[in-house]
Amino acid sequence: MAGDRAGDYRILHEADLRDCLAGQPKLAALLGGEPAAWSITEVGDGNLNLVFIVKGARGGVAVKQALPYVRLVGESWPLPLSRAHYEYLALSKQAELAPGLVPALLHHNETLALTVMELLEPHIIMRKGMVAGTQYLRFVDDITTFMARTLFFSSDLALSAAEKKEAIAAFAGNHALCKITEDLIFTDPYRIAEQNRWTAPYLDGLAAHLRDDMDLHVAVSRLKLKFMASPEALLHGDLHTGSIMVTESETRVIDPQFAFYGPMGFDVGAVLANLLMAYFASAGHERAPGERQVFEGWVLDTVEQVWNEFSRKFLDLWRSEARGDAYPPALFAGEKGAARLEAERQAYMQRLFADTVGFAAAKTIRRIFGLAHNIDFELIEDSRKRAISEARAVRLARGMMVEAVAFRTIADVTGAARKLRDWMPELSS
Amino acid sequence: MAGDRAGDYRILHEADLRDCLAGQPKLAALLGGEPAAWSITEVGDGNLNLVFIVKGARGGVAVKQALPYVRLVGESWPLPLSRAHYEYLALSKQAELAPGLVPALLHHNETLALTVMELLEPHIIMRKGMVAGTQYLRFVDDITTFMARTLFFSSDLALSAAEKKEAIAAFAGNHALCKITEDLIFTDPYRIAEQNRWTAPYLDGLAAHLRDDMDLHVAVSRLKLKFMASPEALLHGDLHTGSIMVTESETRVIDPQFAFYGPMGFDVGAVLANLLMAYFASAGHERAPGERQVFEGWVLDTVEQVWNEFSRKFLDLWRSEARGDAYPPALFAGEKGAARLEAERQAYMQRLFADTVGFAAAKTIRRIFGLAHNIDFELIEDSRKRAISEARAVRLARGMMVEAVAFRTIADVTGAARKLRDWMPELSS
Repeated sequence: MAGDRAGDYRILHEADLRDCLAGQPKLAALLGGEPAAWSITEVGDGNLNLVFIVKGARGGVAVKQALPYVRLVGESWPLPLSRAHYEYLALSKQAELAPGLVPALLHHNETLALTVMELLEPHIIMRKGMVAGTQYLRFVDDITTFMARTLFFSSDLALSAAEKKEAIAAFAGNHALCKITEDLIFTDPYRIAEQNRWTAPYLDGLAAHLRDDMDLHVAVSRLKLKFMASPEALLHGDLHTGSIMVTESETRVIDPQFAFYGPMGFDVGAVLANLLMAYFASAGHERAPGERQVFEGWVLDTVEQVWNEFSRKFLDLWRSEARGDAYPPALFAGEKGAARLEAERQAYMQRLFADTVGFAAAKTIRRIFGLAHNIDFELIEDSRKRAISEARAVRLARGMMVEAVAFRTIADVTGAARKLRDWMPELSS
Repeated sequence: MAGDRAGDYRILHEADLRDCLAGQPKLAALLGGEPAAWSITEVGDGNLNLVFIVKGARGGVAVKQALPYVRLVGESWPLPLSRAHYEYLALSKQAELAPGLVPALLHHNETLALTVMELLEPHIIMRKGMVAGTQYLRFVDDITTFMARTLFFSSDLALSAAEKKEAIAAFAGNHALCKITEDLIFTDPYRIAEQNRWTAPYLDGLAAHLRDDMDLHVAVSRLKLKFMASPEALLHGDLHTGSIMVTESETRVIDPQFAFYGPMGFDVGAVLANLLMAYFASAGHERAPGERQVFEGWVLDTVEQVWNEFSRKFLDLWRSEARGDAYPPALFAGEKGAARLEAERQAYMQRLFADTVGFAAAKTIRRIFGLAHNIDFELIEDSRKRAISEARAVRLARGMMVEAVAFRTIADVTGAARKLRDWMPELSS
């Protein structure tokens, strides 16, 4: 592929991309037939990048190119192309740690900030399926394997301190992407910021209340500090249901461009938050009362199982694969040592659960008052109904962030969500 | 200076060093007179490096060269020369953040792992002065300024997240030095390890008890994990009274070769631990009962003031110089916001105090059961007396590590120390 010298970056258009791919014999063979006959479609609906689907006589590929700015906003918000490097690095590591749960990497061009991957077909973005009320029965097992393995094996429980420090340093340069999270998730929704938006006028009062809620500001600031200064493991960094592609029988995690070393609870919390938002949004998608009851039950079961299975798998790995420098086995020898270490594992998971609950809350609030919203709520056409669903989600999130003591188990979370299913918030008008 | 190509490292002997220094016009001028007339003395009494004092007709310099192994142990324990690079980096940063509190840097040669510094005269190693019962009245103000400024200005409270990540990465390569701490402080004293030693036979029972104390093993393992995975600020990394040179009117912090981004409490705890050990050792240095009472009172006052003044200065910096990404001012606007942020600052210091107490305990126990001991205890010739002083220090340390609830303020620490001053431990025999 042309363009391997620095400074040769250019935004690829169809003809250019066709030439690029044709120049790679393996890709050309995979696509098959005459390059001129390949179909090329730009399908990127994310916030940051170009995504092309290319199909030939034999097969297809997905091509992702980073733009030098935030696609959602435009050239006024520049963003380094290096994120494609970190995405490639993370995808490679995830493929090694959680085989079969990320798209296969076919080609990477650093200069063009371009990655060619397996075309996932007929997978769809999980969030779209959930808006439609589809249940994904493989999801719990796959996502918990993905999280348990990528988080455990990149942590101090599995790595030597030296390996860990080198891995942290390898991702340190991705700070522009971290900064997006720091601003859009942990800061802007709690202050007046130009890019904020919410379902007005109904949530005007709630938005003002959030900007004035100092307990919440302290809680979210502690989470922000943890996000910035707790490199526990290699995070996906943006693990919402829009970063997961599914069929009934397969799950693939995509788009790890926000990857860096951070607190594990941020990834786990992202998954839980997006399930909980799907739950609260569901009422807004009903055409008849109770129509989506089975789906909603599945969502809350999934919330519980995601935590429980993640926790079980993570603990199993810890019991069998702990070759890292943390908790040295020599300090926990014998029956007494084994029992005490097992108790400490449970305590560790309890601390991780508390982080998870907090991060899930932050991920929820930003989708309702910040820049980037999600279609779970956005596709509820009746804005009053949308505001009601959103207010329920925010009420749960506010509690999860501030009243930690009320959320000691995942059943506390789903129980509180269930109680809020039909709660009627006071709306502004 | 010769030797700037990679691979040109060699251990400097007197003649070689003389040529090196003579080749640097500024250093030659500073020393003055004929190079042949310079006196060169190797004075290194630390565990890792060569240290030369060079004196000429006009002035003197101190020259430090890293050896490719641990000096204390020999060539069988290799250690990377790169530590001289990190020491130089840390010293430069400390000179910027805490001017006048570290030796002035005169020259650095990366290939030779060699640094030339201001000769500190008539400064002595603080630990030696304390063994002799000397009070240092500048110490509290100087060491708390050093810690408050180096820790605050390298933290998320003062830096942007991007600057912080880059700074963490810049020190990530110093992991071999971190590993020494991880092994010798947080692991070996709690297990059977060849390099451990203690005052036998008197402390045999206590050593066995420590190896069997699972509450202690959990506590020290949590501290180890925090040491490995909480890059809060640029630490000195070895801030004991042997790394501090003093006169009655001056304080200089030396030897930051263990520098890396870690938890702030590790540095503060190191200072407190070494003061507390000096306190407990003092009884062993008495020639007549009560002879060192005033000195001992000063030591405990100093323990209290080190925490209180550090805390006060750190908080003052936070109130006036918080330009970092943590705790965004926009989230704490107005009178209510200011009050809530101030409460959070106090809560932050409370968490830092808890870390400090734990790390101080770990630093104490390693000096009594691990590889590297200190002269506070070692110079007590009567080994039974030494064991008694050491057992008192260990009793306090064990409580500080495990019974966190009993040590909420620095007065709880000094109060407990005072009660143990004349406590008679059961010794093995």
